[in-house]
Amino acid sequence: MNIAILGFGTVGKGVYEIIKNNGLDFLNVTKIYRRKGSQMTLPIETDDIESILNDDSIDTIVECMGGLTPAYDFVTEAMKKGKNVVTANKMLVATFYDELMNLSNDRNVYFLFEASVGGGVPWIENLSRVGFVDDVKGFKGILNGSTNYILDRMINESLEFDEALLQVQELGYAEKDPSSDIDGDDVLYKTIISANVASKKSFSMDGVLKFGIRNILKRDIDYFKEHDLVCKLIAEYDRSTNIILVMPELFGKEQSISNVALNFNYVELYCDSSGRLSFEGQGAGKLPTGFSVVEDLIRIEQGAVVPILTTEKVQVKYGAFENKFYVRYKNDKVEIVDGMTEKEMRNDNIAFIAKIN
Amino acid sequence: MNIAILGFGTVGKGVYEIIKNNGLDFLNVTKIYRRKGSQMTLPIETDDIESILNDDSIDTIVECMGGLTPAYDFVTEAMKKGKNVVTANKMLVATFYDELMNLSNDRNVYFLFEASVGGGVPWIENLSRVGFVDDVKGFKGILNGSTNYILDRMINESLEFDEALLQVQELGYAEKDPSSDIDGDDVLYKTIISANVASKKSFSMDGVLKFGIRNILKRDIDYFKEHDLVCKLIAEYDRSTNIILVMPELFGKEQSISNVALNFNYVELYCDSSGRLSFEGQGAGKLPTGFSVVEDLIRIEQGAVVPILTTEKVQVKYGAFENKFYVRYKNDKVEIVDGMTEKEMRNDNIAFIAKIN
Repeated sequence: MNIAILGFGTVGKGVYEIIKNNGLDFLNVTKIYRRKGSQMTLPIETDDIESILNDDSIDTIVECMGGLTPAYDFVTEAMKKGKNVVTANKMLVATFYDELMNLSNDRNVYFLFEASVGGGVPWIENLSRVGFVDDVKGFKGILNGSTNYILDRMINESLEFDEALLQVQELGYAEKDPSSDIDGDDVLYKTIISANVASKKSFSMDGVLKFGIRNILKRDIDYFKEHDLVCKLIAEYDRSTNIILVMPELFGKEQSISNVALNFNYVELYCDSSGRLSFEGQGAGKLPTGFSVVEDLIRIEQGAVVPILTTEKVQVKYGAFENKFYVRYKNDKVEIVDGMTEKEMRNDNIAFIAKIN
Repeated sequence: MNIAILGFGTVGKGVYEIIKNNGLDFLNVTKIYRRKGSQMTLPIETDDIESILNDDSIDTIVECMGGLTPAYDFVTEAMKKGKNVVTANKMLVATFYDELMNLSNDRNVYFLFEASVGGGVPWIENLSRVGFVDDVKGFKGILNGSTNYILDRMINESLEFDEALLQVQELGYAEKDPSSDIDGDDVLYKTIISANVASKKSFSMDGVLKFGIRNILKRDIDYFKEHDLVCKLIAEYDRSTNIILVMPELFGKEQSISNVALNFNYVELYCDSSGRLSFEGQGAGKLPTGFSVVEDLIRIEQGAVVPILTTEKVQVKYGAFENKFYVRYKNDKVEIVDGMTEKEMRNDNIAFIAKIN
């Protein structure tokens, strides 16, 4: 199989390195696209995207650029020209899921995105496979390593949020601008993609409840510790209610999910036959994310069967939540609220909110 | 695909139920073999194995009888007649791995055994898939739910071994004769199979170090608690040394493996690209085990590519272990031993031994 890698940052380099170092010669990288002005060192590097899209010898595009522009144009153009696409781009997949899935189906090419959720964890593959046998009833988990690391530091080193964030940034596990992580956008993309795979539908991101950890304080963590609770930023989907939720949640300290350390990702899925199945591993990084891209390339090489999207578009609608919530208001008052509506959760006076499990 | 189920006990019934209840009509169960004298209720049940083996319309045999006789004869005969085999029989797979793998390769039929290890956990599939990209460096985990449940009860209810065993038997999670579980034989079969898949070789069971939990006492558990350690019966394989080990091991109480509750199974695998990947779920039971069998049937239906065994036969040989060990002798003396040889570990005066991680 002849492959072109688009984007040669962390993930693109990881893919290239794994293919070379592991002797996977049947995955033949013939071109690498880089933006104009990049310093190129390999003879196969080019800044001419047309020379890749119009090259009929290239079977598969690996898109590792991130963002919507120009990734969307390159990916759709590639599929229209009969090329398979493997991508690590969560924003692209979450935003244009139904369009890209339907295009791949119409053109009879693969569109695979294991690396877009959970880094090196084979989450999408396992979620898909369960769906061949059982209806997936839902999932719950930690899909962002940066925020898990920040919470880990706050809990174990008794740090304030800003101190923990700085530590995690210095360790290289959080971006210089961490907004997408700490406000929950990164988790939202991954939750939408996972819910789409679980349901074989296509969820709209509009109106999905999303709360981050930007405003969490040491005093919140202290309160949770006193009550033997552990706070995690959670991605959640329930098939019976079609509810998707991204928010901090509190768990008993002996639960598996509470013991997910450092920057690891962890997801539980629920199905009728097998009950709970859990998956844990590195949620980001050059080699783990590259590994998931290469797994997708091997799936294509092996002619793997992939689930087909049903055409149904879904808009999330919330009823009242019957859970208890920890709520700290902007006036510093803390309250345990028994049951909340969407409107109450969106109250502008709330500084930090977490669901109690 | 036309399917015959051999054996209609817990697992066989689970497979049949999942296929029927989930509307998987492309998996067409046309015959069910049961031993002579069984009370048969379905018209497709028969005690005539030849009517199945000689039926050219049957593509795939699902073997759920357990044991070596007559399972070995039925399975080899089926493959010789060009039928795929899916089995949940860990003793059969562990004992005749290279012969059965080579036979399936020679006859160009599938021989799949996801359900033989880890019940409903998609462990074998994920181990295989990682092996397409990376060398699996090893694994470590809990592959027996009964003993995990017994240890869980001993730890959380402060019970003696016999009391905990009785509770777990009454809950239906341990056999009336629990020897294979508590002496580690069940884990040994599963470890051999997993090591074979990880290495693409075929390990001999002869001489593999195997220690169970039959002789563990409340006073051992009390000692571990005092030192913030948790005891688990562990399956372990290290590729660099070709070492396989089945024995009780001690972990810090905050580790993921220490928090595996009740009868759950949990395995960590290690590879270069993705680091540690962990899988957790129900390790036994009608529907979880049936689920894994049905996943194998779907793999066959989809024409999945499976790894091929290399012909290398491997005999495990131990050097000295550099770990610390908790050793309680038959004279009641307890000792923490720093480093042990195989011969020292096999000392007849040892009542209970556990490796400290």
